Amino acid sequence: MKPTSFLAHVHTMVDNRETRHGRAFEYVMFGMITVSVVTFSLETIPGLSKQARSALYVVEAVTVGFFTVEYGLRLYVARKRLTYVFGFYGIIDMLAVLPFYLAVLGVGHIDARVLRMVRFMRVFRVLKFLRYNQAADRLHRAILISKEEIVLFVILSMILLYVSASGIWYFEREIQPEKFGSVFDGLWWAVATLTTVGYGDVYPVTPGGRFFTFLLLMIGLGIIAIPSGIIASALSKARLEQDESGG
Amino acid sequence: MKPTSFLAHVHTMVDNRETRHGRAFEYVMFGMITVSVVTFSLETIPGLSKQARSALYVVEAVTVGFFTVEYGLRLYVARKRLTYVFGFYGIIDMLAVLPFYLAVLGVGHIDARVLRMVRFMRVFRVLKFLRYNQAADRLHRAILISKEEIVLFVILSMILLYVSASGIWYFEREIQPEKFGSVFDGLWWAVATLTTVGYGDVYPVTPGGRFFTFLLLMIGLGIIAIPSGIIASALSKARLEQDESGG
Amino acid sequence: MKPTSFLAHVHTMVDNRETRHGRAFEYVMFGMITVSVVTFSLETIPGLSKQARSALYVVEAVTVGFFTVEYGLRLYVARKRLTYVFGFYGIIDMLAVLPFYLAVLGVGHIDARVLRMVRFMRVFRVLKFLRYNQAADRLHRAILISKEEIVLFVILSMILLYVSASGIWYFEREIQPEKFGSVFDGLWWAVATLTTVGYGDVYPVTPGGRFFTFLLLMIGLGIIAIPSGIIASALSKARLEQDESGG
Amino acid sequence: MKPTSFLAHVHTMVDNRETRHGRAFEYVMFGMITVSVVTFSLETIPGLSKQARSALYVVEAVTVGFFTVEYGLRLYVARKRLTYVFGFYGIIDMLAVLPFYLAVLGVGHIDARVLRMVRFMRVFRVLKFLRYNQAADRLHRAILISKEEIVLFVILSMILLYVSASGIWYFEREIQPEKFGSVFDGLWWAVATLTTVGYGDVYPVTPGGRFFTFLLLMIGLGIIAIPSGIIASALSKARLEQDESGG
Repeated sequence: MKPTSFLAHVHTMVDNRETRHGRAFEYVMFGMITVSVVTFSLETIPGLSKQARSALYVVEAVTVGFFTVEYGLRLYVARKRLTYVFGFYGIIDMLAVLPFYLAVLGVGHIDARVLRMVRFMRVFRVLKFLRYNQAADRLHRAILISKEEIVLFVILSMILLYVSASGIWYFEREIQPEKFGSVFDGLWWAVATLTTVGYGDVYPVTPGGRFFTFLLLMIGLGIIAIPSGIIASALSKARLEQDESGG
Repeated sequence: MKPTSFLAHVHTMVDNRETRHGRAFEYVMFGMITVSVVTFSLETIPGLSKQARSALYVVEAVTVGFFTVEYGLRLYVARKRLTYVFGFYGIIDMLAVLPFYLAVLGVGHIDARVLRMVRFMRVFRVLKFLRYNQAADRLHRAILISKEEIVLFVILSMILLYVSASGIWYFEREIQPEKFGSVFDGLWWAVATLTTVGYGDVYPVTPGGRFFTFLLLMIGLGIIAIPSGIIASALSKARLEQDESGG
Repeated sequence: MKPTSFLAHVHTMVDNRETRHGRAFEYVMFGMITVSVVTFSLETIPGLSKQARSALYVVEAVTVGFFTVEYGLRLYVARKRLTYVFGFYGIIDMLAVLPFYLAVLGVGHIDARVLRMVRFMRVFRVLKFLRYNQAADRLHRAILISKEEIVLFVILSMILLYVSASGIWYFEREIQPEKFGSVFDGLWWAVATLTTVGYGDVYPVTPGGRFFTFLLLMIGLGIIAIPSGIIASALSKARLEQDESGG
Repeated sequence: MKPTSFLAHVHTMVDNRETRHGRAFEYVMFGMITVSVVTFSLETIPGLSKQARSALYVVEAVTVGFFTVEYGLRLYVARKRLTYVFGFYGIIDMLAVLPFYLAVLGVGHIDARVLRMVRFMRVFRVLKFLRYNQAADRLHRAILISKEEIVLFVILSMILLYVSASGIWYFEREIQPEKFGSVFDGLWWAVATLTTVGYGDVYPVTPGGRFFTFLLLMIGLGIIAIPSGIIASALSKARLEQDESGG
């Protein structure tokens, strides 16, 4: 067996979902990500028995084994290795295996907070799902199309949040000093209100604060609607392009 | 009267709302579904008198009688009987009558939980309304048109919910261990927050958790807006097609 | 002065906002509606002094005087009087003056509840604003265009609300019998949740109920988005028609 | 150096972001606004040490110095000085420096409330960001395009809020007199409910009030969706115009 043909074979398996081997590889990796995501969630349940912990550790080690092989194969077949390593999927693939090896090497034992953070990084494995979803590419393109509107939305949101936080602090700080102590407390209220989540942990009680909230929401509903408008507009455009190229 | 012409007559009545008999049949069944839905709701009121229970049971028996006759007629006129029996409407029609007969046969008496579940299945009778609504077909077509976008929405929602649940658990578990005990507790918070329902039973209190919530909602508003965009886009397209075929 | 020319003069004043008298009439009525709406709101403040009550009564009497004259003039110039009297604006104009005269005639003194209801009917005076707003006609047309989609939205909402109410009652009734006693209690929860208001007075606590809520919201977000889609689509169409007729 | 060429040089720097000096000026002012916004927020933290207060005062003085120079330069190069002074950006630029000088002159010492209000006006400095954002122009045009729809949205919102506030007061005032004392209390509930924020501080408990809330939300969802529809429609149109002028 010549190494070149072996490389081509691996390449087909890793990147081409049309072939039989490619599809099998995709299904195995899909299953491994699912198992890994469920394992992480189960580990967080408090008061697990020692046996349960051991079993979860074994499952974790197996999935990391698969992800390590996958990382090696992808590195092996990549035309430009650095582009892969420092690209979006390369970093995700690295974050999927690194925490396990760092823990084995005892890096986290130095400090409990570092250990916790390293272990938490496993959560980003879920982003590996994006690779196996054709629609993700379309989403990527839609984001590129709508870049200017997204920037406009972010800037307007920031300005509105700042004005809201300062205003509510101005109106409510005397009556509710423990809830609206500074503009930073007001920011939390502004986030919960302008997104219309409204937990109800903080809300205005003065007539001035309530009228201010009313004005903000009249403007805020328009700004909150921008993402909806962007997506409706982008989807319409994407569909038109598809219809034209198909016709 | 020849059986063939009788079959044709029944067929017309059951399926053709343009004829007088068809419309009468439609109105009767429409009324029966309404009565049945109201009966089910009234039965759940706690502390009903014995007489009220008896009266509701009689009404239930009568509506089941009508639904049974309807099921028989539809089976009788169906060209491909198995297609009807295992199709969407066939299953709905079966679920509308089965719970009653299972209860009569005493199946539920074996176990209280089974009885409860069997009785609850009656709720799906409300779906029989869909058959009498022309717009339901259009909705079905709209869903088929938007299939890819719906899949994209579901996958992105799942990934975002998982990252949200894990993240909030990471930030809040030390300060509020009784509310954010595991990732599964975090999932409930993520559902209530990203849909902007915000009951207020669980919410972040740490600065880290609050900033994380802010970031999530900035992204989440975009994802929440996808259904809105899909529908606006699909309705626009449906209207264009209608205008073109009409012109 | 001939009566015919007087009629024509009144007609111009009441219905033609292009003329000087028409505009003056419009401004006066606009002001009277505003005064009347504010008066109604002020009257509801508890613990008003006797003098304040008297002053508000005088203002009320004056506005009713103006509305009575307006009603008479409109009736006088209407080509088909019955069409005006039983049309939308005719009923609104009648509701604006009737409560006052019924109270004067002592109808409400028979029963406190009737008095309250009669007095409350004054609130519909606010709908008189619609006449002075050109955009209201466009809204009317937009509703006619989207009639089928609105019916679809209402039917789907009803079915989803019923299934939600029954489902949450099924999952939560044992743990929270005081909050989810019957399907009717569940309906209130369903309204507050599916509209994403989420007051937080009732919410599921069982794993089953929470998972059910998650599924409902995934579907519900799509249905809640229908009005948004309808309006975006209708506005786009209205704009296209405008551009075409203008070009 | 001739004064005319100096004017031209300043003009280029202040208004032309294509040149090197223009970009440098833009970056400096951008940084100053950011510093100023952060300073304002930090000042509101309760219990700051005297040293921290002094440091923040110095930073404040420096940023005001920059904003004063900017105001002078813009006034110097403006073709029509009065148009600048009383225009949107002129007022914003004035509000950015005035509070500081009023405080220095001791105006606020007369009355604590005036001092507070004068100091608070600094918050509007954040609006200076809008000048450095190209997308703001597009937003301005989008608002002009959608002017009629925005007016329709505001009028319908006002009518719906008034009817909601009066209605909920009518249904709930007897059971919850402390929460729904007058129509003005009802207005706060109406704002929190129709925007779907739903803090949960006030909510209906009577069957009548709950059914009324349900009807309102069915209509309200349509009205709330208008901004979303306006923006989707305006963005689609803006994109079409862009595509046509580009083709």
